[in-house]
Amino acid sequence: MEVNVNDAGAGRLEAFSDGVLAVIITVTALSLHVPANGTFAAMIHRLPELLVYLANFVFLGIYWNNHHHLLRAATRISSAVMWSNLALLFFLSLIPVMTQWVARDYRDTAPAMIYGVVALASAFTFTALTRAIIHAEARPVVARVVGRDRKGLVSMALYATGVGAAFVSPWIAYALYVSVSVIWFVPDRRFARSR
Amino acid sequence: MEVNVNDAGAGRLEAFSDGVLAVIITVTALSLHVPANGTFAAMIHRLPELLVYLANFVFLGIYWNNHHHLLRAATRISSAVMWSNLALLFFLSLIPVMTQWVARDYRDTAPAMIYGVVALASAFTFTALTRAIIHAEARPVVARVVGRDRKGLVSMALYATGVGAAFVSPWIAYALYVSVSVIWFVPDRRFARSR
Amino acid sequence: MEVNVNDAGAGRLEAFSDGVLAVIITVTALSLHVPANGTFAAMIHRLPELLVYLANFVFLGIYWNNHHHLLRAATRISSAVMWSNLALLFFLSLIPVMTQWVARDYRDTAPAMIYGVVALASAFTFTALTRAIIHAEARPVVARVVGRDRKGLVSMALYATGVGAAFVSPWIAYALYVSVSVIWFVPDRRFARSR
Amino acid sequence: MEVNVNDAGAGRLEAFSDGVLAVIITVTALSLHVPANGTFAAMIHRLPELLVYLANFVFLGIYWNNHHHLLRAATRISSAVMWSNLALLFFLSLIPVMTQWVARDYRDTAPAMIYGVVALASAFTFTALTRAIIHAEARPVVARVVGRDRKGLVSMALYATGVGAAFVSPWIAYALYVSVSVIWFVPDRRFARSR
Repeated sequence: MEVNVNDAGAGRLEAFSDGVLAVIITVTALSLHVPANGTFAAMIHRLPELLVYLANFVFLGIYWNNHHHLLRAATRISSAVMWSNLALLFFLSLIPVMTQWVARDYRDTAPAMIYGVVALASAFTFTALTRAIIHAEARPVVARVVGRDRKGLVSMALYATGVGAAFVSPWIAYALYVSVSVIWFVPDRRFARSR
Repeated sequence: MEVNVNDAGAGRLEAFSDGVLAVIITVTALSLHVPANGTFAAMIHRLPELLVYLANFVFLGIYWNNHHHLLRAATRISSAVMWSNLALLFFLSLIPVMTQWVARDYRDTAPAMIYGVVALASAFTFTALTRAIIHAEARPVVARVVGRDRKGLVSMALYATGVGAAFVSPWIAYALYVSVSVIWFVPDRRFARSR
Repeated sequence: MEVNVNDAGAGRLEAFSDGVLAVIITVTALSLHVPANGTFAAMIHRLPELLVYLANFVFLGIYWNNHHHLLRAATRISSAVMWSNLALLFFLSLIPVMTQWVARDYRDTAPAMIYGVVALASAFTFTALTRAIIHAEARPVVARVVGRDRKGLVSMALYATGVGAAFVSPWIAYALYVSVSVIWFVPDRRFARSR
Repeated sequence: MEVNVNDAGAGRLEAFSDGVLAVIITVTALSLHVPANGTFAAMIHRLPELLVYLANFVFLGIYWNNHHHLLRAATRISSAVMWSNLALLFFLSLIPVMTQWVARDYRDTAPAMIYGVVALASAFTFTALTRAIIHAEARPVVARVVGRDRKGLVSMALYATGVGAAFVSPWIAYALYVSVSVIWFVPDRRFARSR
């Protein structure tokens, strides 16, 4: 039961998504500053900025990775697939500025909460994209391969809890957001199986 | 009567267009500012900027979407196809700066009018691209699939009316521009049928 | 005598070149400024900037166009092809900043001359790329299709003359540079024939 | 013993990597400044900036070149391949800012040393990517083609020596770094053979 992945429509959706994600993932690299002078102290002063860039890179890398696995199962690109994909790219494009906000005002409630809202919206549109692809395929095999999307549901629950927890303590929110990244770090076995 | 879409020429035209559109669509993301401090008030202060980015994203997303559908019908890339495509990308690349202008000076006549001129030029070059592809194909099937391009003609009429209406009231112009986006939001059934 | 264009190596060379060119071509769009206020006068004040962007777009569009036609004839990517392609992209990436310099100091000798040097280097590396592809193919058909590359030689002669003429008058130099663009505006019939 | 290179997974990994590398390679072009006025003296004042851009372009061009050759041997994209590729792109994205730091504070120890650390991390992740691809293929042919990766090991040894030598004299460090670029300038014969 092979899944054909070379459909021209899916190919171009991937190409465009890759282009947008490549720009987003390197946007923060553009804002990295040269250390103020040639000392190690000046470089250490720039380390937090580097860590923010790394966090950003990992978050978006996970999405690219799972997007890659998901699209491999897609052969038909419906209008719903197109628009849920564009919505996903929109929310992901807000991650760099959100990460920078959290990096500077990490002790405040607002950035901790709003970051969770954007992350939740990203997770939600990713799930919407998954459903749109299943619906467009109209073949039971894909639905079976995708399964019940427990990971997606757990992610959304964790992000939603984090959004609420930000009002108690931003640190609880961050712990919940990081735990989602850990869950997704391992690429989805569901699609790996269908290769 | 299948339409072969994997021609190398069309493929590369798509790849380049996707690259340019991906950069254009994320250009404004680069100019999103981190809120001034860690409060909700500071974030709300940045909301108009976010809405401008969203409007920009939707406008360009619609073009990418229709461009995607149009190119699927193309198998031959003539010189006219190349240059009308480059002209389209040129006008679309002016949309981000136009949107920012409208966002700041929305009560003035000039931005409301000039935005319409750029949108009209985009619509016109998209129609020119459609005609160039039909001409290059030299097969009646494509012309039949593309049909009479009523949507394109209606768009241009609405934009042209908006350009004139901007001298009466910018708000009438904006209402006309938004109505064009609504018309195009649903992807074109013409090409969907040929899949 | 068909030319196979779907070789994976050529495909990726194209994809990377398209990515770099897409970024270069939209780089200046990033630097377009929103008019100072909502009047027509403010917009007219920004027109020269727009014309510089347009000139830039056309120059790079011509290169992309011809690059596209040239790579269609390529099936084998040798080390020489790779490096001449990278050298071409390097010189083309200098065009935006050169164009901006000319736009501001158009009455001076230095920008008129240096622009010609960069344009000459671009033309030279494009010719080097053409030769590298012919050499890599080792099939007489490609060499015959490419022909004697008169256009390339004429371009280089015109640019070289412009570099010298800049010391007499920048305007003679600009006239010569523009004439090269006119020559290349029509895509090369050589490769069109081989489709 | 042909190696199939058109697998969709490898194709998209290449496309995404190309996108990120294209943005990285042109990032510094965005920061090139127009000379202060229309004189040759003003242009000569900008030459060091240009040389930094060139060094950057060559370094990243070499990686793109070898990445291209390496990926041609890949048909299966495992999770390890994905993540080592993302790690490679992360370190390469730090090269532009590192190069700018070295360009300004080239007489200090810190930039000379840290540049070596980033270059070492890039070389290390490239080797990790090579191993991940060999492991994913599970076919002796690829391992044989890739060979013992002596170049990779020598590069890492030279970079590590450079990191230490920076404490004695930055110039020794730079000499060692440049020698690595010279070694890699010639594309890898290993993969060329498998074409």
